[in-house]
Amino acid sequence: MNTSAITPTVRLRHGRLELIDQTRLPASYEIIRLGTVDEVCEAIRSLRVRGAPALGLAAAYGLLIAIEEELAGGKPVFHSTLPQEAVSPPCGSLAAGTGVDEIRRALESASARILETRPTAVNLGRALCRMARVYGSNQEDPAALLQALLVEADAIHREDLEMCMALGRHGAELLASGDRVLTHCNTGGLATGGFGTALGVVLCAVQSNKDVHVYAGETRPLLQGARLTAWECQRHSIPVTVLVDGAAASLLSSGGISSVIVGADRIAANGDTANKVGTLGLAILADQYGIPFYVAAPSSTIDPVIPDGESIPIEQRDADEVCRFDKT
Amino acid sequence: MNTSAITPTVRLRHGRLELIDQTRLPASYEIIRLGTVDEVCEAIRSLRVRGAPALGLAAAYGLLIAIEEELAGGKPVFHSTLPQEAVSPPCGSLAAGTGVDEIRRALESASARILETRPTAVNLGRALCRMARVYGSNQEDPAALLQALLVEADAIHREDLEMCMALGRHGAELLASGDRVLTHCNTGGLATGGFGTALGVVLCAVQSNKDVHVYAGETRPLLQGARLTAWECQRHSIPVTVLVDGAAASLLSSGGISSVIVGADRIAANGDTANKVGTLGLAILADQYGIPFYVAAPSSTIDPVIPDGESIPIEQRDADEVCRFDKT
Repeated sequence: MNTSAITPTVRLRHGRLELIDQTRLPASYEIIRLGTVDEVCEAIRSLRVRGAPALGLAAAYGLLIAIEEELAGGKPVFHSTLPQEAVSPPCGSLAAGTGVDEIRRALESASARILETRPTAVNLGRALCRMARVYGSNQEDPAALLQALLVEADAIHREDLEMCMALGRHGAELLASGDRVLTHCNTGGLATGGFGTALGVVLCAVQSNKDVHVYAGETRPLLQGARLTAWECQRHSIPVTVLVDGAAASLLSSGGISSVIVGADRIAANGDTANKVGTLGLAILADQYGIPFYVAAPSSTIDPVIPDGESIPIEQRDADEVCRFDKT
Repeated sequence: MNTSAITPTVRLRHGRLELIDQTRLPASYEIIRLGTVDEVCEAIRSLRVRGAPALGLAAAYGLLIAIEEELAGGKPVFHSTLPQEAVSPPCGSLAAGTGVDEIRRALESASARILETRPTAVNLGRALCRMARVYGSNQEDPAALLQALLVEADAIHREDLEMCMALGRHGAELLASGDRVLTHCNTGGLATGGFGTALGVVLCAVQSNKDVHVYAGETRPLLQGARLTAWECQRHSIPVTVLVDGAAASLLSSGGISSVIVGADRIAANGDTANKVGTLGLAILADQYGIPFYVAAPSSTIDPVIPDGESIPIEQRDADEVCRFDKT
């Protein structure tokens, strides 16, 4: 895996969940280190970490934090070396006498708390389910169970990186040099395990020496486009122009946009897609002007259990966010 | 004229152009008093006064300020009593010996400066043309010319109020009790001589005891919806919900909106309409969901000289506005 373009969005380092605090970007770049499930839940709710794939990772690693908090007195147990390759990541031990039943109880309780933080992104629940299949197995050796849990969390992370990179490679074939791509919200490394979905497609095209200009809708109320997408584009030297969301129609009508590429929070079995507010309007406007509209998402965002968009739970956040500008 | 619902947006009082400083709303309600053409131009450019009809009034009264500044040493000459009725408004005199040629030169110079402040709203240029027809007449008596100029400026103001009220009455017939109207930017008394266009329609419906709920797009970047429309609705006890502009598509798709009503900056001969960025998107989305979309504008906003929308000059404002939130 070529790790040079990967953003350290979510990492498990020496018993702490390390996140780039996305509420502080672009004004400041701060890594926060979380050691309790409360802190993990707060970080998810307040969008210090956001983006459907990144939420899945935060949830999976968050469960490991629960074990350290409840069964090791907050002492570091888990350490992941991803995105560097590590077949068997290092793993510490719990207090003497801790059994697999206590591990399972701690995980079930933490899982319920993490699951209720945000409803729309399917990756969060899916990652918790994958972890549950591991701790629900018949493994009776505590050390082996810990190891299996870390391997699974890392697998979720590694698969996300690999899926996003494959998505980028395939998607980049749709872009030509000189293209001007309109996107919405943030779908870069910050939204994922480190590489990105819709913005990862642009990144791959740029890595193939195609000139692509990104038009980023600012994405009110929380400005993920103006704050995060613009920051990521600048970081990767991709030319970027931020627009107010209301300007998308004029921009699309001007003929200056080659394609619209967005990410997804959840995709139902029939293809209906939930994504950040504003995405529906962009899809209709792109159709109006005959401009290709793509949803770039890994298979972990597809939810075959949900028949259609009407059944996707849509998060309604605090109305106060509309009155503010400076916070995520 | 029933003046109880009229907002004192633009008034000429004792030789000063009085404006509600719309950059300060809703945090504070401040009347500013302008005594020079520079101040008038600054107020227009920085949107202390905005809205196509209100710009026409500021331009017409602004010319009278030019006469006071240049030919009366800044001493008050003009005073209007509008919206109270006054067939013959009071009018002071200039320095002894001032002739009509000096008046005309002062007005021509001021007119050129005011005309270039903002390009899109036709009302500004049209008001200046109406004033030019008066000072370009063969009136050779300075006092009579001053009187005629004030009468013409007041006529522009009075006609705007009457047109907006008629627009409101006719438009209100399209609304039923229980309607939920989506609008964009600000089209209330603040945008006009004091009554409003699109929001005037809602105001008339409410005055006819119809329950109407306003949904106001916040209108990034300068938030005329969130700041001004919400303020005006609350002032008139009209229920109002502010939404981020990107949320309009979901709102329209929900079936909860009865109609979309917006104002206009300029309407070309073929009906093409220029209005605040975001309006095009709303029109396409309303069409997508079969929701009636109305442009409410007085005839002063129609420009028969311009054949179509492509020929309407569109103002491109400072890109820095997209990076800010707190200023008009």
